[in-house]
Amino acid sequence: MAGEFDLIRRYFNYPTSHTELGVGDDGALCVPRPGMQLVVSTDMLVAGTHFLPEADPGLLGWKAAAVNVSDMAAMGAEPRWITLAISLPAVDESWVAAFARGFRDCCEAYGVDWIGGDTTRGPLNLAPTVFGEVPAGRAIRRDGARHGDDVWISGWPGMAALGLAQVLGELQLVGAWGESCLERLHRPMPRVALGCALRGTASAMLDVSDGLLGDLAHILERSAVGAVLDEPALPLECLLAACRRTERATAALLSGGDDYELLFTAPRERRGQVEAIGRHCELPLHRIGRILDKPGLWLQRGDGVCEALPGRGYEHFRN
Amino acid sequence: MAGEFDLIRRYFNYPTSHTELGVGDDGALCVPRPGMQLVVSTDMLVAGTHFLPEADPGLLGWKAAAVNVSDMAAMGAEPRWITLAISLPAVDESWVAAFARGFRDCCEAYGVDWIGGDTTRGPLNLAPTVFGEVPAGRAIRRDGARHGDDVWISGWPGMAALGLAQVLGELQLVGAWGESCLERLHRPMPRVALGCALRGTASAMLDVSDGLLGDLAHILERSAVGAVLDEPALPLECLLAACRRTERATAALLSGGDDYELLFTAPRERRGQVEAIGRHCELPLHRIGRILDKPGLWLQRGDGVCEALPGRGYEHFRN
Repeated sequence: MAGEFDLIRRYFNYPTSHTELGVGDDGALCVPRPGMQLVVSTDMLVAGTHFLPEADPGLLGWKAAAVNVSDMAAMGAEPRWITLAISLPAVDESWVAAFARGFRDCCEAYGVDWIGGDTTRGPLNLAPTVFGEVPAGRAIRRDGARHGDDVWISGWPGMAALGLAQVLGELQLVGAWGESCLERLHRPMPRVALGCALRGTASAMLDVSDGLLGDLAHILERSAVGAVLDEPALPLECLLAACRRTERATAALLSGGDDYELLFTAPRERRGQVEAIGRHCELPLHRIGRILDKPGLWLQRGDGVCEALPGRGYEHFRN
Repeated sequence: MAGEFDLIRRYFNYPTSHTELGVGDDGALCVPRPGMQLVVSTDMLVAGTHFLPEADPGLLGWKAAAVNVSDMAAMGAEPRWITLAISLPAVDESWVAAFARGFRDCCEAYGVDWIGGDTTRGPLNLAPTVFGEVPAGRAIRRDGARHGDDVWISGWPGMAALGLAQVLGELQLVGAWGESCLERLHRPMPRVALGCALRGTASAMLDVSDGLLGDLAHILERSAVGAVLDEPALPLECLLAACRRTERATAALLSGGDDYELLFTAPRERRGQVEAIGRHCELPLHRIGRILDKPGLWLQRGDGVCEALPGRGYEHFRN
């Protein structure tokens, strides 16, 4: 069986493009560019909690990198370097090779140098840490939403949740949009170009990983504001095309995680800028609500009635 | 039961001293100092592989931070920031509180800001990632050892291995040095001051985590050289005082991991500098061998006979 160091040499050691020293020493050496701040994030993926142990290793590798890269997008930062600590119950070399290829493919797609990590024995667990750069003072945080700002969401959130429902046998999706739901679940595309383009335009931002309502609640809490969502503006079209059930589509949109779309706020007078950025990034941006000065989260229905919404997404350890 | 976000708020959220934005956003924001390079490392600790599930949580917290900080010392870098991704099978709040206190204590002892992480459900797994700073071009790598250099080791490597043997019931240690062996096992003290002081003096360096011979082999391989160790110069005194068995003490010294002492090489003409640095850091530095131009690792016994040594330390997945 391959030893730890053989494994690292064969599968976890790729050329880097902007790193002084990669895999093979006590630490990697990177040179941040002048005038840049460093953004750091880590998202751990555990077998049985975040994915099924029998998940396709190539897709899993992509996803492990992507969910971390998405945190850079959510700050308006450019992802630059990533490490991967991994524990494996045993070495299945074909699994490791496919996993590493998926992880590296995502790194290459986003210009990220994979600079090192740790390989050890234990229950399957993936712990990447990603480092990005943002011009000093330009990161888009969660605490900048202000009364009167618009609330925006990119793309078609909820697709990954529908995809998961089909994988779990709860739902039978149809047509091309049904296919797209599975693609979004398996191969999320972090919105890095959009996140960086929104610097100076968005007032607050995050990536939707635990569900739109739950993640919006984080912005509201950190910014000490409330929000009202405009039900007719919610982007349900593609979800309906895939599953043909309004209730299911709405639930996926509001509470589904795993899409890694960007949820952001921006002052009303920057609507034109936001729309131009959406066109430039070739990504639909939906204006779905507005920020209120009083705490709380409401849904304004098409008939004008406002109802309070529970602002909670997925949370580990919550009973 | 406490939810994920409550846990983070209560136990994983401490004030920082040199960080723009810590826990609570998609990523932390750090400002590297001008002229500095970034050193990044991650060491994962898994229950059942690196520690017993019933290990004292406070000591475990210290150790999880310390083994990562030690990788900064090994590069001659100053540890500055750390993240912690952790998976827990369930929430035992007293365990989490004690663990977090130990982790934070180590961070504080070494001036490291704990800036964020991830908390999730799964088999107990700790994945810190540490990053530090080193003046540009001054990191001490593994590939700089040259023919004729001296080989040095700090402190009394092997103590942690003897401590572990006692914990496993294989050995009964004696006296104050026996106590020290347990202390070294449970509460390793990364040699950060020494590592930084050796910039410009050491030609190659790493921290001994897998055993002196195995780790020395990494330097030899990366530097494309060999070495001979001088048996009478090996620092056995304290180990012998603790266990009174020469064979056991020698094995602990050469193959024991977990001490996190620094193993380094330095040109012969810098002996005086190395000795002065040892005095300044109040740490014994032992000159235990020299670098050869031909590959391989030998032990020169007191009677002048040279024997070849197996250059292998602990390796995960190795049968």
